[in-house]
Amino acid sequence: CSNKSFSFKEWFHNVWEFCKADVNRVIFALKVGFAVLLVSLLILFRAPYDVFGTNIIWSILTVAIMFEYTVGATFNRGFNRAVGSLLAGVLAVVVAQVALCSGHHVVEPTIIGASIFLIGAVTSFMKLWPSLVPYEYGFRVILFTYCLIIVSGYRMGSPIKTAMDRLYSIAIGAFVTVLVNVLIFPIWAGEQLHNELVKNFNAVADALEECIRKYLEDDGSVHPEFISTVMDEFPDEPAYRRCQATLNSSSKLETLANSAKWEPPHGRFWHCSYPWSEYVKVGAVLRYCAYEVMALHGVLHSEIQAPYNLRIAFQSEILEACNDAAELVRTLGKDISNMIHTPKSTSLKKVHISTERLQRAIDLHSYLLTSSHDNFSNSTKPLTKLSHTLSSTLSDLSYNLSKGGSGNFESSTNPPPQDTTSVPTQAESYHEAMKKQQRRLHSWPSRDVEVFDMGGPEMDNLPRMRALESTATLSLATFTSLLIEFVARLDHLVDSVNELAEMAKFKHEGQGV
Amino acid sequence: CSNKSFSFKEWFHNVWEFCKADVNRVIFALKVGFAVLLVSLLILFRAPYDVFGTNIIWSILTVAIMFEYTVGATFNRGFNRAVGSLLAGVLAVVVAQVALCSGHHVVEPTIIGASIFLIGAVTSFMKLWPSLVPYEYGFRVILFTYCLIIVSGYRMGSPIKTAMDRLYSIAIGAFVTVLVNVLIFPIWAGEQLHNELVKNFNAVADALEECIRKYLEDDGSVHPEFISTVMDEFPDEPAYRRCQATLNSSSKLETLANSAKWEPPHGRFWHCSYPWSEYVKVGAVLRYCAYEVMALHGVLHSEIQAPYNLRIAFQSEILEACNDAAELVRTLGKDISNMIHTPKSTSLKKVHISTERLQRAIDLHSYLLTSSHDNFSNSTKPLTKLSHTLSSTLSDLSYNLSKGGSGNFESSTNPPPQDTTSVPTQAESYHEAMKKQQRRLHSWPSRDVEVFDMGGPEMDNLPRMRALESTATLSLATFTSLLIEFVARLDHLVDSVNELAEMAKFKHEGQGV
Repeated sequence: CSNKSFSFKEWFHNVWEFCKADVNRVIFALKVGFAVLLVSLLILFRAPYDVFGTNIIWSILTVAIMFEYTVGATFNRGFNRAVGSLLAGVLAVVVAQVALCSGHHVVEPTIIGASIFLIGAVTSFMKLWPSLVPYEYGFRVILFTYCLIIVSGYRMGSPIKTAMDRLYSIAIGAFVTVLVNVLIFPIWAGEQLHNELVKNFNAVADALEECIRKYLEDDGSVHPEFISTVMDEFPDEPAYRRCQATLNSSSKLETLANSAKWEPPHGRFWHCSYPWSEYVKVGAVLRYCAYEVMALHGVLHSEIQAPYNLRIAFQSEILEACNDAAELVRTLGKDISNMIHTPKSTSLKKVHISTERLQRAIDLHSYLLTSSHDNFSNSTKPLTKLSHTLSSTLSDLSYNLSKGGSGNFESSTNPPPQDTTSVPTQAESYHEAMKKQQRRLHSWPSRDVEVFDMGGPEMDNLPRMRALESTATLSLATFTSLLIEFVARLDHLVDSVNELAEMAKFKHEGQGV
Repeated sequence: CSNKSFSFKEWFHNVWEFCKADVNRVIFALKVGFAVLLVSLLILFRAPYDVFGTNIIWSILTVAIMFEYTVGATFNRGFNRAVGSLLAGVLAVVVAQVALCSGHHVVEPTIIGASIFLIGAVTSFMKLWPSLVPYEYGFRVILFTYCLIIVSGYRMGSPIKTAMDRLYSIAIGAFVTVLVNVLIFPIWAGEQLHNELVKNFNAVADALEECIRKYLEDDGSVHPEFISTVMDEFPDEPAYRRCQATLNSSSKLETLANSAKWEPPHGRFWHCSYPWSEYVKVGAVLRYCAYEVMALHGVLHSEIQAPYNLRIAFQSEILEACNDAAELVRTLGKDISNMIHTPKSTSLKKVHISTERLQRAIDLHSYLLTSSHDNFSNSTKPLTKLSHTLSSTLSDLSYNLSKGGSGNFESSTNPPPQDTTSVPTQAESYHEAMKKQQRRLHSWPSRDVEVFDMGGPEMDNLPRMRALESTATLSLATFTSLLIEFVARLDHLVDSVNELAEMAKFKHEGQGV
C-alpha cells in the first residue's frame, strides 16, 4: 500500500512538472471546460431549448470539435466547419425540395439515396487530393451534415427548418468557442511558431558545440558499439537529440504557420499580413545547416576515426571556428527572439576568418593527412575501429606485422596488410588472428552475436567492413570539410534571416556599427 | 470558351492520372459512399426510425467519422469511439442518477454543470499528455458524448434510455463501417507499410547512384547558384527528392505501423503478432544511411569543389563501390518485397571489397589531395566557386596573381592570395577585382542582389565565405569518406533486415549459396 501511495505521489509529481513546463496547457484545459459549461447552460436553461429543440445539442458538439489549442487552429477549424455546414445545408435543402416536388413514394427515396451515395464518394475522393488535404475536416463536415439534414428532414418533413435550426445551433457553439478562445488567455499559433524557430536555432548551435567538444575530448577509448548508437539513443548528448527534433520539425512549423495565417494581428506581431511563411523558409535553411551537424555527428560516431593526437593538433582552430559559428547562429536566434535586426557582417566576417585559419592550418599540415607521413600513426594505437571484434583482431594483426618488421606501413604504394596474397610471410599470423577473431565473435556478448547464433549457416560468415589507416586519417579532413561547409551555409542562413527581418519589419538596431 | 473547355480537359486528365496512380483511392471513395447509403437506408425505411427515434442519426455520424482509408486506422478509430462512448455513457448515467436523486431544482443543475466543466477540463488536459496523444480522438468523443447524453437526458428525463439508444445507433454505424471496410476490397495498412518501406529502399539506392553519377559527370561549368539550391528544389534530381521524402517518412511509417497493429492476420502477413514495429526500426536504420546520402549530396552541391580531373581519377573505384552498395540496398528492398530471406554475405563481401579498393586507391594517390602537389590544380581552371559573383572575381584575381608570377600557389606555407596584407604587391589588382565584383553584384539578376538592394547599408558589405585551394582538393576525400561511411552503415542495415526476416518468418532461400 505504501508502495502504491508512493507511485501516486510520483505520478502527481510528473503531472505537476508537466504543467509547470508549459502553464498554457492548464489554461487550455480550463478554457475548454469553461466553454462547454457555457454552452451547456444554454440547454440547462429552458428558453433556448424551447426555441431550437434537440438541435441545440449541435452547439455542444461544435464546441467539443472546434476548440483547438491555438487561436489560429480554432479559426481554421471553424472556417472548415462553417463553410462545410453551409454548403451541405444549401445542397441538402435543394435536393430535398427536388425530391419532395416529385412527390412519388419511390422516386423520392431514390433521389435522396443516390445523392447520399454521390456526396459520400465525391467528398471522400476530394479529401485525398493533395492540395485539398488541409481541408479534410471540411469534407467530413459536408458529408455528415448533408446526411443528417436530408435524412432527418425527410423523416420530419421540414428540411429547411431543420437546416436553419442546426445552423443557428452551430453558430452559437462557434461563437462561444471563438469568444472563450480569443478573450481568455489566448494561445497564439504565431507566438508558438516564433518561439519554436528560436528554439531550433539554439538547438543547432548547442548540437554543433557538443559535437565538436566530444570530437576533441574523446580519446577513442570508450567508444560504444556502433550498433547501439546508430539508432536514436544518445543519452549523453541532449543537444544532439534536440537537433534531431529540429530535423523533424518541418511539419510542426508548417502546421503552426498555417494556423498563424488565420490569426488577426496581435501583440508583437502587430502588422497585417505578417510573413509567417517566411518563418518556414528560415526553418528550412536552418535544417540544411542541421544536416551538416548530423553529418559531423556521423563522423564523430563513425567506425573510421582519425587518431586522437591528430585531432588534437588542430584543436584550437577547430574550436575557434566552431565557437564563432555557434555564436553566430545563437545571435541570429536571439535577434529573431527580440525581433531586432542587427548587422551581421562583423560576426560573419569573424567566423569566416576563423574558418580560413582552420583551412590554412589544414593546408599547412596536410602532409599529416597522407599515409606516407606516419609520424603520427606510429605514436598512437592502431586506428581501425570498425566492427568491435574485428578492430581488436586488426590490432593484433598490425602488431604482428610491425614485429615482422616488414615495411608495409612506410610505403604507401604497397598494398595494405589485409591483402593476404601479397604478404605471404604474414599469412600464418593473419590466419591465426582470424581464428582468434572467430572465437571472440562467439563469446562476445553483444546483440550481433545473438543474431549470428540464431541466424543459421549464412549468418556465421557475415563479413564486416574494414578501413585502411590512411582513410582513417582522412576522416579528420572529412570532419573539417563538413565544418567548413556548415559555415558556408551560414551565409544563406544570414540571408534568409535578413529577409525575414525585412518582411516582418524588425526594428533596426546598431545600424552604424 | 475553347480555352475553358481545354482547361477542363486538363483538369479531367489530372484527375484521371490521380486515379490511375492508385486505384485504391477510387475504391475508397466508392466504399464510403456505399457505407453512408447503407446506413441512410436504415432511416429511410420506417422501422428503425420508429425504434430509435432521432438518435438513429448517430449511426450516420459514426460512419462519416469512423471510415478511414485503411482497415487498421478504421479499427483504431472505432476502438477510440467505442471506448470513449462507453466511458462517457456510464459516467453520464451515474452522474445523472446522482443529480436526479437530489431532486433539488438548484443542486441538480449545479452538479450537472460542475461535472461538465470537470470532464471538459480533464479530457482536454489528458489529450495533451505525450503518451496519450494517439488517443486524442477518444478524449474528444468522451467530452461530447458525455455532454450530449447528460444534457439531453436532463431535458428529456430519461438519461439511460438516451444513452442506450445512442450506443445502439453508434454500434450500428460502426458495424456497417467495419463490414464495408473489411469485406469490400480492403485496403490494409500493413500492405501499405510493407510497400512504403520497399519504396524507401529503392529511393535511397536511386539517390545514391544519381548523386555519384552527377558528381562524376559534372565538370563544374554549369553549377547553379547555391542560394537557389539550398532549398528543396532540385528539378533535375528526382531520386534526391524521393530520398528526402524518405527522411521525412518516419511519422508516416509510424502511423501505418500503429494502424497495422490493429489489423487481423491477412494475405501474405498470415501469422499472428506480425512484427510491424520492426518495419519502423528498419526504416530508422535506412534513414541513417539516407543521412549519408544527404551529406554526399551536400558535397555535390557544395561551394567548395574538388577539380574535375581529380574526381575523374578515382572514377572507376567510386563507381564500383557505389554500384555495389546501391545493388545491395536494392536487393535488400527486393527481398523484403518478396518476403524471402537470402544470404547477403556474398554481396556484402563484394561491396566491402570494392570499398577497400576505393580506399586503397585514395591511399595510393593521397599525395594528390595535398596542396604541395599541384600537378592537378595547375591543369584545371580555378577551383574556388563560392558565391557565384565572388568566384568569378577570384578567378580574375588568381589569374592576375599567376600573371604576376608570384610563387604563392606553389608553396603551401605561404598565406593564400585572399589575404591582402601579406600580398602587398597584388593589392591594387585585388581591389580592382573587388570593385569589379561590386559592379557585378549590382547587375546580377539573382534574388541575392534584390535583397542586397533593399537591405539598407549593412547588406552591401555582407562578407562571403572563401575557400582555400587545398581544402577544395580535400573535398574529394570528404566525398569518399562519406561513401565509405555509407557502406559501413550498410552492415547495420543488413543486420536489421535479417532481424526483420527472422521475426516475420520470411522464407529462407538459397541457403546453401
